[in-house]
Amino acid sequence: MDTKPILMAGNWTSCGADDPTFQSFNPISGDALPQRFPITAWPDLESMATASIDASRALAHVDPERIGRFLERLAECIEADADRLTQTASLETGLPQPTRLASVELPRTTDQLRQAARAARDVSPSGWRRPVIDHQTNIRSCFEPLGGAVLVMGPCNFPLAFNGISGGDFAAAIAAGNPVIVKAHPAHPETTRCLAESVVTALEDTGMPPATVQLFYHAEHEDIARLIEHHAIAAVGFTGGEQAGRAIKSVADHAGKIVSLEMSSLNPVVLLPGCDESGLESFAEAWSGSILLGSGQFCTKPGLCFLIDESVARNLADRTVAHLSGTESCLLLTSQIVDGLESGVRMQQDAGAILLTGGLPVEDAGWRFQPTLLMTNGPSFLEMPDSMQRELFGPAALIVACENKTELLACLRSLGGQLTGCLWGDEAAQGGEVAHEVRSTLRSKCGRLLENKMPTGVAVVPSMVHGGPFPATSHPGFTAVGMPGALQRFAALRCYDGVEESRLPAILV
Amino acid sequence: MDTKPILMAGNWTSCGADDPTFQSFNPISGDALPQRFPITAWPDLESMATASIDASRALAHVDPERIGRFLERLAECIEADADRLTQTASLETGLPQPTRLASVELPRTTDQLRQAARAARDVSPSGWRRPVIDHQTNIRSCFEPLGGAVLVMGPCNFPLAFNGISGGDFAAAIAAGNPVIVKAHPAHPETTRCLAESVVTALEDTGMPPATVQLFYHAEHEDIARLIEHHAIAAVGFTGGEQAGRAIKSVADHAGKIVSLEMSSLNPVVLLPGCDESGLESFAEAWSGSILLGSGQFCTKPGLCFLIDESVARNLADRTVAHLSGTESCLLLTSQIVDGLESGVRMQQDAGAILLTGGLPVEDAGWRFQPTLLMTNGPSFLEMPDSMQRELFGPAALIVACENKTELLACLRSLGGQLTGCLWGDEAAQGGEVAHEVRSTLRSKCGRLLENKMPTGVAVVPSMVHGGPFPATSHPGFTAVGMPGALQRFAALRCYDGVEESRLPAILV
Repeated sequence: MDTKPILMAGNWTSCGADDPTFQSFNPISGDALPQRFPITAWPDLESMATASIDASRALAHVDPERIGRFLERLAECIEADADRLTQTASLETGLPQPTRLASVELPRTTDQLRQAARAARDVSPSGWRRPVIDHQTNIRSCFEPLGGAVLVMGPCNFPLAFNGISGGDFAAAIAAGNPVIVKAHPAHPETTRCLAESVVTALEDTGMPPATVQLFYHAEHEDIARLIEHHAIAAVGFTGGEQAGRAIKSVADHAGKIVSLEMSSLNPVVLLPGCDESGLESFAEAWSGSILLGSGQFCTKPGLCFLIDESVARNLADRTVAHLSGTESCLLLTSQIVDGLESGVRMQQDAGAILLTGGLPVEDAGWRFQPTLLMTNGPSFLEMPDSMQRELFGPAALIVACENKTELLACLRSLGGQLTGCLWGDEAAQGGEVAHEVRSTLRSKCGRLLENKMPTGVAVVPSMVHGGPFPATSHPGFTAVGMPGALQRFAALRCYDGVEESRLPAILV
Repeated sequence: MDTKPILMAGNWTSCGADDPTFQSFNPISGDALPQRFPITAWPDLESMATASIDASRALAHVDPERIGRFLERLAECIEADADRLTQTASLETGLPQPTRLASVELPRTTDQLRQAARAARDVSPSGWRRPVIDHQTNIRSCFEPLGGAVLVMGPCNFPLAFNGISGGDFAAAIAAGNPVIVKAHPAHPETTRCLAESVVTALEDTGMPPATVQLFYHAEHEDIARLIEHHAIAAVGFTGGEQAGRAIKSVADHAGKIVSLEMSSLNPVVLLPGCDESGLESFAEAWSGSILLGSGQFCTKPGLCFLIDESVARNLADRTVAHLSGTESCLLLTSQIVDGLESGVRMQQDAGAILLTGGLPVEDAGWRFQPTLLMTNGPSFLEMPDSMQRELFGPAALIVACENKTELLACLRSLGGQLTGCLWGDEAAQGGEVAHEVRSTLRSKCGRLLENKMPTGVAVVPSMVHGGPFPATSHPGFTAVGMPGALQRFAALRCYDGVEESRLPAILV
């Protein structure tokens, strides 16, 4: 079968016959899927960078209305192609087509694109451009596109809503007037290619510069580093694992490029003291449901539960194991996730955590892992932070039984930056002294603080913060979800000093 | 004479008798000034970091009204101590006391503090906290203090207005509710110490946590790196040279800390075609005045002038040399600036630039350099970017004579990020085709675009952008001058999801 072409400067371009290729896999069977995709070499990446310079310049003169129409047209094209897209995505990810992809993720994707379209058009003082006009000094400022391309690298776990093509970073970067170069996630290249077909139609239908969106599927690490360093690239948007994220951040930081990372989060939940049996049971039910959602492959999966008192911990552990045991095995997206879980569980066991259930891959066709629960105590958690704070991406979690409030707070203070943090307990507990101290400690550790609510749902509303301190993200002042906030990551603040009115941007007149 | 104490956790603390010390110098005579200041070792830096954790926690419960009162009280204390402060600053910097320090810089400093006080109190949707409330989902977000200290390192060139104590970064960090640890610039430690005395009074008078502001004067590079990496430090604010800035950025980036840098800028000015003799003369006058202002030691000094046509370049060169020659020598702030100028001029000469005037230190008492002008052509500028784009911090500038528009645009495209960029020419020139292309190229290279106005004045107004792409700063989405924008650099975006009203911050209810 022919190797699929990349999308370069508006054209579907074939790679050389001898270029290396890769295939994606069906997670249910573990079999390689038939399509072959190129591992793009530097000359083609460089050509894409060069093409993006023209797109950048052209976009500077494109009306936000047109950008909005493009994003809306893209949403329509995706809806028109929904069956094929969700079938393809299901084949490449194993995610259920009707319940997850068609009913939840695709509508979320098109809703995000439409919200981004509205954000692109918003020229009010509360919009992303935040115009400030000082008539007295004739100094005026606003946010503008970066003047270079955004390299978008999406994660494996949301083949539509966070896809490099048409997902959150894509929508935000385009809405803020930047061209994008997308690296597909190699676990779902065909889904990404299908989405890019919708993009090409939408670009043509709305008269957008053809190189506004370019796509490749895979490249060597050193070539991706060269691309980040290229003067045509102004920013990088990456969602994925911490190891890759840190490597990308290092290259981007050294080159002085903006880097918007969403990497690793344990999403601690603190079960407050004073929980009765029925409260414990409803927590166990909610928590295990959240751990199993999407086979635990959410960046907001609540992977850590802290509480005081070992007997409560044992009680919770028994109940949670009972809930988790209702699921025999969880289908995972990639073999790397299976391997990462297995080694992560072993690492935590080696550090002293006790395995309560699961812990092993399921030796069957495809990629599956047992729902997994571990338990440790405060001193062990504090002593081995690298092991205990390792993200177990998948259906696995760790209970940390603390002896008292002091130990609990010490554990919380030892945490790295998180996307979310949650306090769980009845009104008396939430108003109590322990909760007060837990809240103020957890608050500065996470972007989103929850009460009696599992963090796995991430509403796409303007007040959402899907962000947090490093290493959850690269900068605690931004959010990856929610408009217009998400656009701010890919915008430059600029001012005009003494510039004659006819030469000012329309928004500043 | 005794070594001056550092300000640690609210107390003036002496260092050990054997600790190394340093002195500042009188730039006019080159003589060391009598006071000795400690080079603080790691244990004291670590104690300051620890003390700042308590201050962070305490500040989380301090009303913005109190923070505002502190900043205003500090402005009053500085005004009450104006004579001593400006005398001391003049002694350490050689800057004229009445015309520069007393009449311009001190009022600017107190005005900034008062603007920061107003910004701290502003809880409106356009204030720095930017509250967003979604009643339907009960998800609410706002900006908050970082939850850690800001390490502030000020530059040598504004001993008051950008001093680590009481300058722009200080005011912004405190107004956003963060404690600060200040490293004085070693060229004006006594000025900084005097300012810190005002800080101590203002902290006491307004009942602020004592460790809100801490001060040391100097430390080894490796200890400063350890301090940046310390978990108590959330952000670094640095203004200064590119070499130090890059080193600090590297440490902060690797540790995942926010870093707000203002480093290096050439501030290109493009003299548009069609300038007649009188236009050329008034440009030469304005430009040379801006080059000489503060002996050229402004981060916004226009150090590069691009134009088309060698004969115009020679004409401009003659006129500019005539203006510069009216000043025999320029007093500089430090001996390092003298050395940097001398080696920078030589480097540009080696790269092919022609020295038109100046180029040498003045062999006299103290630190002086001749007003300096160099000239090169487009091809040389493009061929040797490292030499030609080296910032000559001081009274020196480079004319780049381009052959045509294509060469001019190529030169502009080769530039790194800048704080400012300027187009100079009459209305016909500004509206012409060359200006159009120059403008769109320059626009994405700089934070502030000017028309027929030299960039050295930086008005403290909300629409000011004192920022720009790397390496001018570390992130093009922020400004170091102008409220409330400057606060945003030291703020975290946070959301509350399902949190009961009584436990929400007041601004979100």
